[in-house]
Amino acid sequence: MAKELTTREENYSQWYNDLVTKADLAENSAVRGCMVIKPHGYAIWEKMQAVLDKMFKDTGHVNAYFPLFIPKSFLSKEASHVEGFAKECAVVTHYRLKSDPNGKGVIVDPEAKLEEELIVRPTSETIIWSTYKNWIQSYRDLPLLINQWANVVRWEMRTRLFLRTAEFLWQEGHTAHASKEEAIVEAEKMIEVYATFAREYLAIPVIVGRKSESERFAGALDTYCIEAMMQDGKALQAGTSHFLGQNFAKAFDVKFATKEGNLDYVWATSWGVSTRLMGALIMAHSDDHGLVLPPKMAPIQVVIVPIYKNMADLEKIDNAAFEIKKKLEKRGISVKYDNRDTQKPGWKFAEYELKGVPVRLAMGMRDLEKNEVELARRDTLQKTQVSQENIEDYIENLLVEIQQNIYDKAFKFRAENTFKVDSYEEFKKQLDEKGGFYLAHWDGTAETEALIKEETKATIRVITDDENPEPGFCMVTGKPSKQRVVFARAY
Amino acid sequence: MAKELTTREENYSQWYNDLVTKADLAENSAVRGCMVIKPHGYAIWEKMQAVLDKMFKDTGHVNAYFPLFIPKSFLSKEASHVEGFAKECAVVTHYRLKSDPNGKGVIVDPEAKLEEELIVRPTSETIIWSTYKNWIQSYRDLPLLINQWANVVRWEMRTRLFLRTAEFLWQEGHTAHASKEEAIVEAEKMIEVYATFAREYLAIPVIVGRKSESERFAGALDTYCIEAMMQDGKALQAGTSHFLGQNFAKAFDVKFATKEGNLDYVWATSWGVSTRLMGALIMAHSDDHGLVLPPKMAPIQVVIVPIYKNMADLEKIDNAAFEIKKKLEKRGISVKYDNRDTQKPGWKFAEYELKGVPVRLAMGMRDLEKNEVELARRDTLQKTQVSQENIEDYIENLLVEIQQNIYDKAFKFRAENTFKVDSYEEFKKQLDEKGGFYLAHWDGTAETEALIKEETKATIRVITDDENPEPGFCMVTGKPSKQRVVFARAY
Repeated sequence: MAKELTTREENYSQWYNDLVTKADLAENSAVRGCMVIKPHGYAIWEKMQAVLDKMFKDTGHVNAYFPLFIPKSFLSKEASHVEGFAKECAVVTHYRLKSDPNGKGVIVDPEAKLEEELIVRPTSETIIWSTYKNWIQSYRDLPLLINQWANVVRWEMRTRLFLRTAEFLWQEGHTAHASKEEAIVEAEKMIEVYATFAREYLAIPVIVGRKSESERFAGALDTYCIEAMMQDGKALQAGTSHFLGQNFAKAFDVKFATKEGNLDYVWATSWGVSTRLMGALIMAHSDDHGLVLPPKMAPIQVVIVPIYKNMADLEKIDNAAFEIKKKLEKRGISVKYDNRDTQKPGWKFAEYELKGVPVRLAMGMRDLEKNEVELARRDTLQKTQVSQENIEDYIENLLVEIQQNIYDKAFKFRAENTFKVDSYEEFKKQLDEKGGFYLAHWDGTAETEALIKEETKATIRVITDDENPEPGFCMVTGKPSKQRVVFARAY
Repeated sequence: MAKELTTREENYSQWYNDLVTKADLAENSAVRGCMVIKPHGYAIWEKMQAVLDKMFKDTGHVNAYFPLFIPKSFLSKEASHVEGFAKECAVVTHYRLKSDPNGKGVIVDPEAKLEEELIVRPTSETIIWSTYKNWIQSYRDLPLLINQWANVVRWEMRTRLFLRTAEFLWQEGHTAHASKEEAIVEAEKMIEVYATFAREYLAIPVIVGRKSESERFAGALDTYCIEAMMQDGKALQAGTSHFLGQNFAKAFDVKFATKEGNLDYVWATSWGVSTRLMGALIMAHSDDHGLVLPPKMAPIQVVIVPIYKNMADLEKIDNAAFEIKKKLEKRGISVKYDNRDTQKPGWKFAEYELKGVPVRLAMGMRDLEKNEVELARRDTLQKTQVSQENIEDYIENLLVEIQQNIYDKAFKFRAENTFKVDSYEEFKKQLDEKGGFYLAHWDGTAETEALIKEETKATIRVITDDENPEPGFCMVTGKPSKQRVVFARAY
């Protein structure tokens, strides 16, 4: 069959690429580094968007939209931001094409050169804070709790579908506050929103914490993150929330009259997740048969496939199938009944396995006579005969069980691949052999961190906020360490 | 008061600009021609998106996402398309900035020049059809019914918030079909979807029909449109649906194996509406007090304002107000209770009038004693005393009535400003005096159309598909005409 996947064992990276393209999630486009998100992939992204958007609104945020373009000079206004973002980006220099005088197609009109170049936003702190300047005069105007759903562009040299693309879709929250404390509470609140979303919807057990200084967002005083483990033991940063201090307010001169009548710079946060979450979702759960989707993220939760020899049989099965479909839809379960006669049942089984539909019902004449259906779970690939009586109760519970099982499996995998190490030699050896997350002591310096990265390609993924931190000694330098931090190789 | 608007009488255009900015709908950004859509404006756009997205899905369409950038050479592939779209657009020529060696900020790195320039999409036919080429082999792959929600850029020299901006938000449907007939049915179906949306949700009575050849989309064989009348008598094109024939299939070599075993080019449609609809909604209904929103498009449908002298009073009013809020929300009505003590009731009244909240409830101690509230309708500005008993029934019905009333008012206005004319002299005179729509005869030639446009700035807005077309003689040339067409000056 054309849709066979490379196995994970064989080549994990190729397995991922095969899966993304063959399950119709996304593909590379004619524009280098930019992807096309295909309908099946986009439907999953829409589910993510709907849940997140509601979570943002429930926590008091509203949506708005800011320009795609940023004047070049804006990027230089925040010193560390420019280092992080002004380099690899798409630069608009002209605003007109004209017919080629040599007769072939169109050329850039040299007379239509922009006075100041425009950058396609790699992130929107600068354009948004230049706007907030006009919106904020007094403490009465605060807090501003605004989110934007948008596309952004970062000119990546090595791209991978969903994980790292030149253009990607995301949401970016940008909030403004009257006090440092309030801004920190906001940044922490939003990383918890992301963690809840990852755990309860994506079924991914993420670790919440902070980044080390070297791994922080360019312009942030503190970066909170959620880190997930993929099936090859590598880490994937799935979302970040930044406490930006007064850096952007100072860069764009955004001051407010305080309650006490003074003037002060505004405090800021920003936070975002992107279509990278699609990569996380795919890599965390899927198997050699294809995509495994937690039911809450599945555009189609149940598919029904008829097994028939002739049209008279099909008609009978149709009736029973539509009945089941109706009952399930009443419970808010999304169902597809695939009675196309252009494809055989075996082809359909493979197709819906590949696309990650959590529950498959197959129904033939014998099932019909016994008032049963054959039910296959995508997560375990187990098949059982189930009565059509009260099948909606059965499936409603089963979807909850599958959601939990997928989470538990990922949790167990992470636990089995997380190791405490105290010696740098052991760390290096085991990292090469097994991958995974390493809880190790670090002396807190950027130098040691850089050395470890240089020598092992592992980075500090997250520093957790432990209630009882375990002190010790840096595995490299032997200097004192306040707590273990999480090292891993990462996407 | 700072938020006073210019009146429509005084200066319609200034009234519109005042309204858009003062009602917090949108504002100009630091980037020429690009707007910031503020939270109140964006909330209305989100309501439009939600309704349209559901209508698209109910008619069998799915969403996907295609790249922001289009290789320059793609634009030249469809001959008439390049004329229409390849001219005023944002051109990306470089992919990197570097620190200015003279020490100030960043400059474009001359070594990071793209081999082929990229155009920020002005519309996506070319990039999408270059993708469809790989998706379509056989009639079994058809139809493809895909929609995209996206931002697009057209480098407009003279911009106006929502109506004409360099960057705007829109949806673009791009469908592929096995037959000409099926593609035409699709193009017609989607213009009807738009018409239904405009009438039933935006409360705008639109005229459905076709464009003349000169007004067609660049690359289309037929352009269907909906045209709305604004309060100054000018027309606004609110949505278009194009039958593209096989033009893009030929340009990108997209062929399919027919059921009969032949190879044929695929048939195409595209259709779109944009944030321009925001401009139509604002201009169609609003008055000198501010925005008037049809209830179905209002982010807040009911606002409750307490009138109190002291905190003891407020507490009593709070209780009653929250009770009403709960009852209304149970009916799916969105309610804001504004008991902020930083603003006076009069300020709040003006604010919610400006922002177009359809129903305002004011509640003081006297109302409370009589178990009543004062209710003000935004559309008529009428106030009445209403019992709190069963107020949810009353308001539920009232919202339906307001929605209808706003539509009826717009319908009446259009009827009163639509004129049959038979002489070109009369046409010119009356157009200058009264504006409005003119039903006139035209000989069907581009020359006459161009002459009328040149002399009067009026264009053919729409050619309706009349059951009993009234033949006559062109008002300019006296040549035979099959039916009257709609002329107007337009946005």
